[in-house]
Amino acid sequence: MRRELFDIPEGVIYLDGNSLGALPKHVPARVQEVVREQWGQRLIRSWSEGWWEAPQRIGDRIGRLVGAAPGQVVVGDSTSVNLYKALMGAVKGTTRTEIVLDATSFPTDGYIARSVGELTGLEVRPAHPSSLDLTENTAVVLLNHVDYRTGGILDMVELTAQAHSVGAQVVWDLCHSVGVYPTELDEIGVDFAVGCTYKFLNGGPGAPAFIYVPRERQATFENPLSGWNGHRAPFAMESSYVPDPGIARARVGTPDIISMLTLDAALDVWDEIDMRTHWQHGLSLTSLFRSYVEQMTSLEVITPNTVLRGHQISVRCENAAEVMDKLIARGVIGDHRPPDVLRFGIAPLYIGPDDVKRAAEVLAEVTR
Amino acid sequence: MRRELFDIPEGVIYLDGNSLGALPKHVPARVQEVVREQWGQRLIRSWSEGWWEAPQRIGDRIGRLVGAAPGQVVVGDSTSVNLYKALMGAVKGTTRTEIVLDATSFPTDGYIARSVGELTGLEVRPAHPSSLDLTENTAVVLLNHVDYRTGGILDMVELTAQAHSVGAQVVWDLCHSVGVYPTELDEIGVDFAVGCTYKFLNGGPGAPAFIYVPRERQATFENPLSGWNGHRAPFAMESSYVPDPGIARARVGTPDIISMLTLDAALDVWDEIDMRTHWQHGLSLTSLFRSYVEQMTSLEVITPNTVLRGHQISVRCENAAEVMDKLIARGVIGDHRPPDVLRFGIAPLYIGPDDVKRAAEVLAEVTR
Repeated sequence: MRRELFDIPEGVIYLDGNSLGALPKHVPARVQEVVREQWGQRLIRSWSEGWWEAPQRIGDRIGRLVGAAPGQVVVGDSTSVNLYKALMGAVKGTTRTEIVLDATSFPTDGYIARSVGELTGLEVRPAHPSSLDLTENTAVVLLNHVDYRTGGILDMVELTAQAHSVGAQVVWDLCHSVGVYPTELDEIGVDFAVGCTYKFLNGGPGAPAFIYVPRERQATFENPLSGWNGHRAPFAMESSYVPDPGIARARVGTPDIISMLTLDAALDVWDEIDMRTHWQHGLSLTSLFRSYVEQMTSLEVITPNTVLRGHQISVRCENAAEVMDKLIARGVIGDHRPPDVLRFGIAPLYIGPDDVKRAAEVLAEVTR
Repeated sequence: MRRELFDIPEGVIYLDGNSLGALPKHVPARVQEVVREQWGQRLIRSWSEGWWEAPQRIGDRIGRLVGAAPGQVVVGDSTSVNLYKALMGAVKGTTRTEIVLDATSFPTDGYIARSVGELTGLEVRPAHPSSLDLTENTAVVLLNHVDYRTGGILDMVELTAQAHSVGAQVVWDLCHSVGVYPTELDEIGVDFAVGCTYKFLNGGPGAPAFIYVPRERQATFENPLSGWNGHRAPFAMESSYVPDPGIARARVGTPDIISMLTLDAALDVWDEIDMRTHWQHGLSLTSLFRSYVEQMTSLEVITPNTVLRGHQISVRCENAAEVMDKLIARGVIGDHRPPDVLRFGIAPLYIGPDDVKRAAEVLAEVTR
């Protein structure tokens, strides 16, 4: 626990870091420096004083947390936009006929997959990760590493191998696992991955997302959003698009510098973190919360009781919206997902054993 | 001139507001409030306290500056991403065979148009705006309102009518005209427009871009980037994508709140501005700068000497990169574009007659 690094409001137990991470204390001063000095005083000169390369530099910092060697992750755009790039890249030129969609995914993954399916003529087949039924018709499988409702973690090693065994590619959505799980993208041989930075990474509201394109796929990856930032020589202003040879080809337009550098500052908190230790720490805390909830309430915990779970406990509860309002009114902030799920994110950086005990007590009070 | 509202560094004449606008003085405090209070203290609750609707609310503020009634402009993503949405929306379901590309466009417009062409099978035909040769094969024409190299303004009324006369649609890129020209999108009947907010609007480095989809086109506009923010009921987490009935369907993923609200704060400067008066003011200043350059140097001004020009003067100059370095070293900040163009943005909000005189003197000194 490194709670001293965070600015958590008095009287609040914040269990929604899986939706919007808390503010690291040092971040406001760094944002101020970006606005007042880099923008205000250096003006256009800042583009050549660190801004231009920020998406790749910050990408490498995230790469360390997901097992990606430098030069394979770039930050920018939203998760939805990055999903689109990854899926369009994966199906480009394929003669296969289907995209398999993890039916437990966060909705945006399915919306984007269907849009890609419509544009390319591929069928989108939703399937449960336990029975994907992949065939030689499968071009790509889109999987969500952590189920946003239950907090269950999919077996990335096994499912990636399953896809590869039929010659299909795999795109992983890491939104709920980055900053949680010691993912090893390079070692597993994942084809593409995307994720957001505003949940467990504490990058700030709507902080830019990232995309992972492994080095060996970069030369053939075609970004459908061929904006000038992905060009080999963006300032040559050439009329034809020649993509950057490396990960920069996944860039699109001018990056949102203020949000980007807010994220950069926030990532300092992660510099000393070993992801394996961090994950174990989260497992202890979620176990503890689970046991309190089971002791103190009659609610059903739907998060799988195995080690394959995120830093999240989800509870089935009638009138979930109303119950969550009551919890928030008493200072316990989580969220709910329709129709009947209460979600509690347990971010080990700023949540401790006393917090989860008190949260369970309040949950017991409001559902009694 | 409202220079007192801006934080311009001592000793600098900033003539690059057409690339990155200057910092309005009140913005840092507002950004700090977003970070410390809205994110740090209110946390996830801020999403229902103004964040969620910010893209439409801020879009309406920009709408006023480009002649768009409320409910037709939304802020988010980069210009390149918005160009992609607009072009894909324009060609969806067409039986026509070509996209006509303004050959004088900023390169990213062409890169995106070609990507759209490849995906949809339409041919991309570059043409000079003076001879577009539109036919009944033309699905859409992509035009740049202000030429980024010369500063010349295209006649939006005439060119839009030309496109419509053959049943083609038109997408206008307003990057260099928003905050410059009293554009009347609704009145002219433009089909789609996009633009950025980090140039003359002073929204901050990489501030989010915008897209205009007029009300009568919204019901049939299909956003290829069908992220959850464009859904009719994003929090219902439905598995099928049903677009919002209005402009929100042009949204994609979670917006970058810190950059978005930085832009929102910056727009306060524009609240009192009448665009016609503002444009006239810019014309006087660019005329003045032109006359000084012509008197004091032997350089050729390539910006058209008509009223159809932006708040920019471009000058042809050998060794443009080197000359610009010398200018910057003496406190006159502009930029250059290959191979031989020096660009000087004249933002009437913070540039006055003394500035343009001094800038011309320094230009004369370094090119003597």
